[in-house]
Amino acid sequence: MANSFGKIFTLTTFGESHGEAIGGVIDGCPAGIKLDFKAIQNEMNRRKPGQSKIVTQRKEPDEVQFLSGIFEGKTTGTSIGFIIKNTHQRSNDYAHIKDAYRPSHADYTYDKKYGNRDYRGGGRTSARETANWVVGGAVAKQVIPSIKINAFTSSVGTVFMEKPYQDVDFDKIESNIVRCPDEVTAEKMIAKINEIKKQGDTIGGTVTCVIQNVPVGLGEPIFDKLHAQLGKAMLSINAVKGFEYGSGFCGAKMKGSEHNDIFNTDGTTKSNLSGGIQGGISNGMDIYFRVAFKPVATIMQKQQTINKAGDIIEMQGKGRHDPCVVPRAVPIVEAMAAMVLADFMLLNK
Amino acid sequence: MANSFGKIFTLTTFGESHGEAIGGVIDGCPAGIKLDFKAIQNEMNRRKPGQSKIVTQRKEPDEVQFLSGIFEGKTTGTSIGFIIKNTHQRSNDYAHIKDAYRPSHADYTYDKKYGNRDYRGGGRTSARETANWVVGGAVAKQVIPSIKINAFTSSVGTVFMEKPYQDVDFDKIESNIVRCPDEVTAEKMIAKINEIKKQGDTIGGTVTCVIQNVPVGLGEPIFDKLHAQLGKAMLSINAVKGFEYGSGFCGAKMKGSEHNDIFNTDGTTKSNLSGGIQGGISNGMDIYFRVAFKPVATIMQKQQTINKAGDIIEMQGKGRHDPCVVPRAVPIVEAMAAMVLADFMLLNK
Amino acid sequence: MANSFGKIFTLTTFGESHGEAIGGVIDGCPAGIKLDFKAIQNEMNRRKPGQSKIVTQRKEPDEVQFLSGIFEGKTTGTSIGFIIKNTHQRSNDYAHIKDAYRPSHADYTYDKKYGNRDYRGGGRTSARETANWVVGGAVAKQVIPSIKINAFTSSVGTVFMEKPYQDVDFDKIESNIVRCPDEVTAEKMIAKINEIKKQGDTIGGTVTCVIQNVPVGLGEPIFDKLHAQLGKAMLSINAVKGFEYGSGFCGAKMKGSEHNDIFNTDGTTKSNLSGGIQGGISNGMDIYFRVAFKPVATIMQKQQTINKAGDIIEMQGKGRHDPCVVPRAVPIVEAMAAMVLADFMLLNK
Amino acid sequence: MANSFGKIFTLTTFGESHGEAIGGVIDGCPAGIKLDFKAIQNEMNRRKPGQSKIVTQRKEPDEVQFLSGIFEGKTTGTSIGFIIKNTHQRSNDYAHIKDAYRPSHADYTYDKKYGNRDYRGGGRTSARETANWVVGGAVAKQVIPSIKINAFTSSVGTVFMEKPYQDVDFDKIESNIVRCPDEVTAEKMIAKINEIKKQGDTIGGTVTCVIQNVPVGLGEPIFDKLHAQLGKAMLSINAVKGFEYGSGFCGAKMKGSEHNDIFNTDGTTKSNLSGGIQGGISNGMDIYFRVAFKPVATIMQKQQTINKAGDIIEMQGKGRHDPCVVPRAVPIVEAMAAMVLADFMLLNK
Repeated sequence: MANSFGKIFTLTTFGESHGEAIGGVIDGCPAGIKLDFKAIQNEMNRRKPGQSKIVTQRKEPDEVQFLSGIFEGKTTGTSIGFIIKNTHQRSNDYAHIKDAYRPSHADYTYDKKYGNRDYRGGGRTSARETANWVVGGAVAKQVIPSIKINAFTSSVGTVFMEKPYQDVDFDKIESNIVRCPDEVTAEKMIAKINEIKKQGDTIGGTVTCVIQNVPVGLGEPIFDKLHAQLGKAMLSINAVKGFEYGSGFCGAKMKGSEHNDIFNTDGTTKSNLSGGIQGGISNGMDIYFRVAFKPVATIMQKQQTINKAGDIIEMQGKGRHDPCVVPRAVPIVEAMAAMVLADFMLLNK
Repeated sequence: MANSFGKIFTLTTFGESHGEAIGGVIDGCPAGIKLDFKAIQNEMNRRKPGQSKIVTQRKEPDEVQFLSGIFEGKTTGTSIGFIIKNTHQRSNDYAHIKDAYRPSHADYTYDKKYGNRDYRGGGRTSARETANWVVGGAVAKQVIPSIKINAFTSSVGTVFMEKPYQDVDFDKIESNIVRCPDEVTAEKMIAKINEIKKQGDTIGGTVTCVIQNVPVGLGEPIFDKLHAQLGKAMLSINAVKGFEYGSGFCGAKMKGSEHNDIFNTDGTTKSNLSGGIQGGISNGMDIYFRVAFKPVATIMQKQQTINKAGDIIEMQGKGRHDPCVVPRAVPIVEAMAAMVLADFMLLNK
Repeated sequence: MANSFGKIFTLTTFGESHGEAIGGVIDGCPAGIKLDFKAIQNEMNRRKPGQSKIVTQRKEPDEVQFLSGIFEGKTTGTSIGFIIKNTHQRSNDYAHIKDAYRPSHADYTYDKKYGNRDYRGGGRTSARETANWVVGGAVAKQVIPSIKINAFTSSVGTVFMEKPYQDVDFDKIESNIVRCPDEVTAEKMIAKINEIKKQGDTIGGTVTCVIQNVPVGLGEPIFDKLHAQLGKAMLSINAVKGFEYGSGFCGAKMKGSEHNDIFNTDGTTKSNLSGGIQGGISNGMDIYFRVAFKPVATIMQKQQTINKAGDIIEMQGKGRHDPCVVPRAVPIVEAMAAMVLADFMLLNK
Repeated sequence: MANSFGKIFTLTTFGESHGEAIGGVIDGCPAGIKLDFKAIQNEMNRRKPGQSKIVTQRKEPDEVQFLSGIFEGKTTGTSIGFIIKNTHQRSNDYAHIKDAYRPSHADYTYDKKYGNRDYRGGGRTSARETANWVVGGAVAKQVIPSIKINAFTSSVGTVFMEKPYQDVDFDKIESNIVRCPDEVTAEKMIAKINEIKKQGDTIGGTVTCVIQNVPVGLGEPIFDKLHAQLGKAMLSINAVKGFEYGSGFCGAKMKGSEHNDIFNTDGTTKSNLSGGIQGGISNGMDIYFRVAFKPVATIMQKQQTINKAGDIIEMQGKGRHDPCVVPRAVPIVEAMAAMVLADFMLLNK
């Protein structure tokens, strides 16, 4: 239950970062979709570790192996099982945390909740789980090919891209390793991450996502508002601390006379502070939202913490970790958005 | 489906603001709870219109009538049906919007999605629906009496309460009509709302919510993270544009070495930037989050808009509306939080 | 959760037989359906007590009051709330069972499960709940007007109607009070019920249901097989002990060469032992199934039983009870079938 | 959605009989259970093809490979992913049915519903899927070790075991290849199956299941009655046409004075026609039910059928099929029952 996402288009996942494989089941995918497997693998590559010098240097090919639900290249309408092998585990990297609770990690809460914890690589709490989500999202994108979903890095620490999303050239997102479509800002962000990495520290950031060509009418008006479901999807991603859509927190400072989006005669609006959603239902304008990521908790500096016995110990991050999670989070944000949109498209039929 | 909230403790609702009654069904409430009906009505009164001079002057007694699931004052474990009569409808106030789409309202999206729309008072999109939620939340609070949930107004427009939540005296929340526990700031907020009201305009704001005495272990680690469910609950409330918990969007600017919460030997933490949740699971520290509300869309100034035929028309708000939704949103935020917490407490057993 | 039925077209119910009202919420009903309220009330009248001399002489008008989701006679696509007032309660009839466990009733299991039990009229276990289901079913029938659902009494005790369903004139079902479309058998059934009633005893029976004009393709192949969902629906009805469809238990005695339904060139089949469903999915042929009802547990003869203290006591039924539940069960079987079919029709879109 | 079973203890499955592997995800399994993998494999062996001369001679080792959710032999409370490789596929056996619709199979309904069908081995409709269910059930049994679940063959064609379940020695179920605990009847059943097999025909049968040591209070009183969920579970199994529990269809012929189960002073009952469930809730007595299986549709005799073009063709079963499904269905019935019971046990906490 807690490992499933979606109502019609659903993803159910399993896997620890140090087991043999992770994987999942996609249910509710319509029959007859010719899958572009290269596009799916491309999304995996955008998320995978070791892809550039500003991310973790762990190497995982992250090749998806589909086991069912596809016949002669097309979906059959039955459930799609898949696995991703774990190839590059170094369990020894985690021996030092077997009995320790790392600060601002889930070690402590997991131990208290479940008692029996696979401590290697964070077990089920590992962000490796999000590889499963990218598979689900990559398939979802192909269920709704007319809808365009583009996410990008909009800030790293205090380095912000100031451009409004309307001025962004989405084709430039993949032109640099930090995934910021503004070249000048991208350079500053990369420099910032390199500086932070040298300090053995980590840094937070934000991802902005824009969804275009959404038909009018997606979303349910009471508890399954389109933005509520998008918010839940984003808040499910590891390290996320906040979600805002349209005018967001800035909207809370505004007056109604400034904030209202005046209609054109065709039902579109002159401004779009609503962020493409009114009363929980898409209005056909661009949907856009912003997601806040905290800095990665594992740092290469010494920190005080406690062990299971409650003794104070000193610890220092080992292994290969991301100094900033945001560049690799971009495809994850897109994947979760794609699953939400595919679900509502299918519900709307 | 889309009118139900929760997994174990669930609320299913119905009702338009101009029908005979609104109401709902609470399912999953444990047997044997002696309900304090006065406390429930008190929550209703905190939300109801006409309660003070800075909110809408519509009058609704908002008395809850329970129809089942309670025997000799105690819950029986069966589903609890309830209704709230609509007593103070003025359908004429809405005749002018029958064929018009109000800017930044759900009129347009509803019409496109459903075709057949009860335009009176916003129909099902009316914030009157939240009266049902306050019933659900008031019952939920009694399911989890040890957990303390306190929400308050933390900003109106650009008037912010600067105090950290740790310095707030929750007993002062109800001491003023804007529900800001800092008296000086409250005065400024009330003045701001009055000024805005005179302009025939509206203003946004934020509500902060603090949840205390939460046991360690609530929340599910993957898709039903405690904060994801809280976020979805808050984003379901009318006019909400954003949600952040713990360090929130500020956390995205910080470094890991600043952001990590260092443990005390008893498992509590020295700081609490995590906001009481790690890996989606409560860690026993205070949970706190902030919710952004946009300004109410109905303003008493003239605005251009369109009608169903696509003609440009001029319109001006009529009827009795809130200049700022935030004071009445405070009990709604608490109610939604209470339902989420009750649900996870029951799931955790 | 346990008080909701369906996935898209859902009914959530509440109510005890001796509270002020019972009722429910229908969610997922499409917008724009012009409801025939007379047809709905007609279904209520087929189920209601006091309708003939062979059923309980309790009188309840069972008028449905719709509170939402309907505007100018048409559904709006929002949730439909309704209540049915309890008008003819005689709580005194139940004083004698306050501390007693009636044999083969749910008193004992309820008390052990919930502790706090509304003993009056069976509380939530009362078959009065099925009035809510008939509302749901009557609306569901109007969601799928092309599908014809006809149930009838096929046996009372050992009095069986021997005719195969193909020879039945459904128009005769309502021509007699026992709802058996064969006049001769109907007479025998009525005589049997009268005889049993004079003995202060009760008798079981079966209901057969035929569903026609079902499009090919309803049902899901693995866990939501069409017949599995129909079976669950029927087994939810009070007093049901068995369900079989198509060849049913007789099919278990047959050989494959006898049982296989040979195709005509248009995809229909020459025989229909499959009962209109193959691999969990409708094949366009008539769906038919049979439901077994045990005799009503409350008899007017003296029986030994126990009270809460575990003492042996003697008890005898009081109040007004059905000697045979089957005639009133016919519309309930149709209602549950209609909700299942409506749900799958909406899922199939 | 349609590939998931259960509410708390859930199984989500995937896989076609001729893909690389089938498998699933078990969610909601509590942490800390030391799994007996040998017992799991033993259940697999009871279901697997080729186990005796009266079942299909296909050979599959059906070894379960667990991929997650288990650490150092114990469950961790996270989702348990597993796969079962398909090793013994002979796709050529199915070339002849590529464009044909086999009588009383799901070929026709699948093709109409999905358009794109994996015809090899029945694709997703293959009973191979039940291997996944046996994994789920085998784990479920270990979640509820105190509850004893025993199923056995109670009839093959018209050969019935006449003994009431109370006189059955469950230890003898596995003493013969037809899984009937009465040796004399077992011999007759085996002879009957051999005779039918020689004719190139198939035969139906019934499985009876007895569940003991169930605590009082499992099941929900309205729509999730314990027997309704058991019925749905059984009706999900391929080839099932009927389900009855307790007195079943016989109960429909009885009088209340005969059928009522009179209490002993300790809350147990003298008779058990209720079948261990009253008002949908377990009463602590033995639960027992009977499941009807139709004869396997694939026969080795020539039959007329149609192809996709609607032409009449002649066809004859090829490959390796079961003459009677019942002996291999016994562990499947137990597995589904175990999952239902585990789910309600966890819900009841």
